[in-house]
Amino acid sequence: MATRSFWAWGYEEQLPDADGRAALASALTAVLGVAPRQPRPLPRFSDVKLPSPRIAAPGPLAEFSTVDAHERALHTYGKSYCDQLRAFALDFAPAPDFVLLPRDEAEVLAALNECADAGIAMIPFGGGTSVVGGVEGEVGPGYRGVASLDLRRLDRVLEVDPVSRAARIQAGATGPGLESQLAAHGLTLRHYPQSFEFSTLGGWLATRAGGHFATLYTHIDDLVESVRMVTPSARGAAAVLQTRRLPASGAGPAPERLLLGSEGAFGVFTEAWLRVQARPRFRSSASVDFTDFDSAVAAVRAVAQAGLHPSNCRLLDASEAMLHGASMSGGPVLLLGFESAEHSVEGPLTRALAIVTAAPFCGSCPRGPQHRESGQRGGDGAAESWRQAFFAAPYRQSALLSLGLMADTFETACTWAQFPRLHAAVREAVRGALQATCGGGFISLRFTHVYPDGPAPYFTFIGAPPEDADLATRMSIWRTVKQAASDALIESGGTITHHHAVGRTHRPHYERERAPLFADALAAVKRTLDPASIMNPGVLLK
Amino acid sequence: MATRSFWAWGYEEQLPDADGRAALASALTAVLGVAPRQPRPLPRFSDVKLPSPRIAAPGPLAEFSTVDAHERALHTYGKSYCDQLRAFALDFAPAPDFVLLPRDEAEVLAALNECADAGIAMIPFGGGTSVVGGVEGEVGPGYRGVASLDLRRLDRVLEVDPVSRAARIQAGATGPGLESQLAAHGLTLRHYPQSFEFSTLGGWLATRAGGHFATLYTHIDDLVESVRMVTPSARGAAAVLQTRRLPASGAGPAPERLLLGSEGAFGVFTEAWLRVQARPRFRSSASVDFTDFDSAVAAVRAVAQAGLHPSNCRLLDASEAMLHGASMSGGPVLLLGFESAEHSVEGPLTRALAIVTAAPFCGSCPRGPQHRESGQRGGDGAAESWRQAFFAAPYRQSALLSLGLMADTFETACTWAQFPRLHAAVREAVRGALQATCGGGFISLRFTHVYPDGPAPYFTFIGAPPEDADLATRMSIWRTVKQAASDALIESGGTITHHHAVGRTHRPHYERERAPLFADALAAVKRTLDPASIMNPGVLLK
Repeated sequence: MATRSFWAWGYEEQLPDADGRAALASALTAVLGVAPRQPRPLPRFSDVKLPSPRIAAPGPLAEFSTVDAHERALHTYGKSYCDQLRAFALDFAPAPDFVLLPRDEAEVLAALNECADAGIAMIPFGGGTSVVGGVEGEVGPGYRGVASLDLRRLDRVLEVDPVSRAARIQAGATGPGLESQLAAHGLTLRHYPQSFEFSTLGGWLATRAGGHFATLYTHIDDLVESVRMVTPSARGAAAVLQTRRLPASGAGPAPERLLLGSEGAFGVFTEAWLRVQARPRFRSSASVDFTDFDSAVAAVRAVAQAGLHPSNCRLLDASEAMLHGASMSGGPVLLLGFESAEHSVEGPLTRALAIVTAAPFCGSCPRGPQHRESGQRGGDGAAESWRQAFFAAPYRQSALLSLGLMADTFETACTWAQFPRLHAAVREAVRGALQATCGGGFISLRFTHVYPDGPAPYFTFIGAPPEDADLATRMSIWRTVKQAASDALIESGGTITHHHAVGRTHRPHYERERAPLFADALAAVKRTLDPASIMNPGVLLK
Repeated sequence: MATRSFWAWGYEEQLPDADGRAALASALTAVLGVAPRQPRPLPRFSDVKLPSPRIAAPGPLAEFSTVDAHERALHTYGKSYCDQLRAFALDFAPAPDFVLLPRDEAEVLAALNECADAGIAMIPFGGGTSVVGGVEGEVGPGYRGVASLDLRRLDRVLEVDPVSRAARIQAGATGPGLESQLAAHGLTLRHYPQSFEFSTLGGWLATRAGGHFATLYTHIDDLVESVRMVTPSARGAAAVLQTRRLPASGAGPAPERLLLGSEGAFGVFTEAWLRVQARPRFRSSASVDFTDFDSAVAAVRAVAQAGLHPSNCRLLDASEAMLHGASMSGGPVLLLGFESAEHSVEGPLTRALAIVTAAPFCGSCPRGPQHRESGQRGGDGAAESWRQAFFAAPYRQSALLSLGLMADTFETACTWAQFPRLHAAVREAVRGALQATCGGGFISLRFTHVYPDGPAPYFTFIGAPPEDADLATRMSIWRTVKQAASDALIESGGTITHHHAVGRTHRPHYERERAPLFADALAAVKRTLDPASIMNPGVLLK
């Protein structure tokens, strides 16, 4: 059985081995123009020293609580660059005092009630894949302890409504877990964030995760029919906020939308009804190489505004395409795909390619197009290379970190009109910060999702901090780059996050983006649903 | 210049004349099986007696306030059946004490601040087309008076971003007003609620209005990029909640979604950025007659779950088709349409028709299909009959009322699995109530919008109260039918409204639909944004 790494992304067994990391080192250091790095020895769990618990789980929770060292370590951090840096350095100072593993909703509610009474901060925990400080125990003063509430035992598809194409799913179900249960009914959710292997439905709901579809159903929000949240506002049924199963409603502000994105600050999702669908049978895809990035952007905008609704519409700039092995020409590449369970999608792909390859966009002849009728994997070479690299990327980040290199991503959304300014500002800010801290570095861009009124740009940056830099210096270098990037996003009209969430990391910039009156409204909601203010303190709100 | 009727829907000149009303009377009374009714004399405005204002507009508001009798009368009610009944009977008891006509946002804010200080209830007023008691001055005790705040002077398209396909529009712009301004840029919003001629952007935002598109972009919510709301929470800029222009974001709960549907209870929308589009060039449409309603429902469900996204997908049951002159066979009829500014939509229509006419759905040969490339009106006969009847329906309701007949509509949404039970329960409840109060009556159904997980059913009912019934009896009869219908909706898993809003009429059933904790959350938001509780009291919240 595979073992979750206590410091790196994913399973220990999936991390590139020493030879693989050495190869990565020489490839990347060549790109960065720095001397090759020697892999550092990987940390061993036996060297981890956890702080002693400050408080024990309140008595009624004893049956489903643990202070096992490996559990406490796995619940100390998410998987951001800094999280991994600290864990790599064996720093587990913010470990939770205990971990709760409730077996049903009643135990979730008991956990909230008891911790509220005892003044213990409560950190809901799904897959632990937050990259924004969403699950860490650094909650500030005022708490007698910190509990991590792991939903992994609530992992079932409880009910399927095949007529309405909806399924009631527990919040602790992971991507593969819920998909395999839905597959037994011939159905699928088709929500594939990069964290798919580990992240959970509850985490997707709490963070408004972005998924597979590049258009239309981009966030999990779009697939939600109703939600169920347990709050520490009361005991018994009065503590549960269950919204009605409806395809749509116009009755007052949408209740689900106030809870989606609440990041554990209001309560804990225990289950939800999701819109599911038949498994796709028809797929058509192609990729188009460009020689000019601005032309590629114009082409993608035209597709996004044409009402064709591709499932894949990912533009990679030249650097991103190089990084993912997706370019034939060394230039930008656009990956286009359509899918349907019901009918051929040759027509819309053909139409999209006609738009993309028309003058004045300067697209070359498309590779592909391929039209397939089956469930088989595949697609043209560029799309397949990209798909494999997509899911491997988090492992690569960990491997680079073990080489002493800094690699991270950040993302946003903005209008098409704002994009050129935002793009230029972000590149300048990140390049400047990398130059100042690492003597240079790498930055690349792709669009993960596109809308009629704008794209969701996603940036990757890599730098080589001084080889002898200590933990504090490495964290400070990252903060410098991150601050420069985040300032540029907010000042250029972007959002601090399209789908990575706010957490503790993005909160200062979220506060600049968010209307002050809306912050007041959220704070009022929090006081109502979480009167003792124990729920994930410091996330979203001060 | 056309004159808005002080009691009926729309313009006085558009109401059917005496001959027209007499013809309607004999047609409907034949359907209902009652003796023909004589048109009652129409009320004259000169007979209206308005209550004296209890309070004058606070001094700083004098420049843009009026106590003109016609203005006060026009701002007394919306256009529900009971609103029209009361106005027809010259009962204007809940007239506002004064009407405010601000010329800019600063005057809107001044109005809110002054009325909050003076303890005057504030009723935001757009087109005055509410059918749920959303704009009336019956606000309960605790206020020194009632002001109606009419946004009609804020009616401009302020800015167009053609690259991002978005426009900044003031909240007082009516449907035709904003469309004509957008047309100058070759753009359109394509949001056509039945009230389109009179209702305003601000009203659409406040009530989450349903529009033209039967799938995908069904509510105005789906077209909103950002909103701007003025609240009475502060003076100056601190009173304004402006959300950021973004195509999408995952930063916390969606701020727009908390304000959309707030029905004037939190503040007043002054403007918004809306997603607009190129005018459609390609249209394909067809209609299909059915002999069996359940088969028709199954066919529509299959289309809704196929990912084809028709712009029109309206199923009329046999009675509804008869009422609208849309059926050739005397049975149910499905109106299907696709549109695009960019490409032919023959393909998706052909595919939808293949689904609909396949066994075992028993659809007959479709009428049409017609494929047109131009901006011209038209379509097959059924669709055109239906479109004309759609916009004429509110006038017909007023004409029937003048004949002493009761006609009204209500609507909902539910899952496909729940629909058969809801349909049966609603029919039984409404038929029973009509039988008990009117000795019988008429009920019909259509789907206004459809989703992968369920339809939005829309019911019309007509009854003939006793000819000598007085106002109180007529209102009581309507309440009996409405109560029966609303109980059936809520008890069968529906929503109290898909797009007519909650207002004061639907609030008791909304409270049964809404999770109690969500009600607490909304109340907390209201205390924050409207601390003096002057905004549209009694709407949404007690």
